[in-house]
Amino acid sequence: MIYTVQVKVMPLKDLLDPQGKAVMGGLQNLGLNTITDVRIGKHIDLQVEANSKDEAIAAAEVAAKKLLANPVMEVYDVTIS
Amino acid sequence: MIYTVQVKVMPLKDLLDPQGKAVMGGLQNLGLNTITDVRIGKHIDLQVEANSKDEAIAAAEVAAKKLLANPVMEVYDVTIS
Repeated sequence: MIYTVQVKVMPLKDLLDPQGKAVMGGLQNLGLNTITDVRIGKHIDLQVEANSKDEAIAAAEVAAKKLLANPVMEVYDVTIS
Repeated sequence: MIYTVQVKVMPLKDLLDPQGKAVMGGLQNLGLNTITDVRIGKHIDLQVEANSKDEAIAAAEVAAKKLLANPVMEVYDVTIS
């Protein structure tokens, strides 16, 4: 069966997020002053062939650890729908 | 009150996703053959100052429409936690 697994990769809380800062500036120039902080990461949709949800999540965890996220700068979060 | 609103921006289904294709190749080189498709988009966390959830979502929708997503190539999805 094919499962859709979602991996969210975000910059670590303590690190600067220059892309987020740039977007923040853009939003303020547009007059959207109610938005006080922006952080930008990646959203990755994986189609995983597996026999169970747990197996699909395990495959996505391996992918996230080995390739999708850089643990020095990012945290990841795997969910399945 | 400060609400955390999440905006997911993904490339349109019918468009090529070169970043996803590249990661797909990388995963296959690592031997992760159970993953059959990869699509990569952006995940944006906004901190929004608003009086209600609806107001926070509305502000995020405006931000997504005006700046965060390019409607020619991307779809966006706003959720609040």
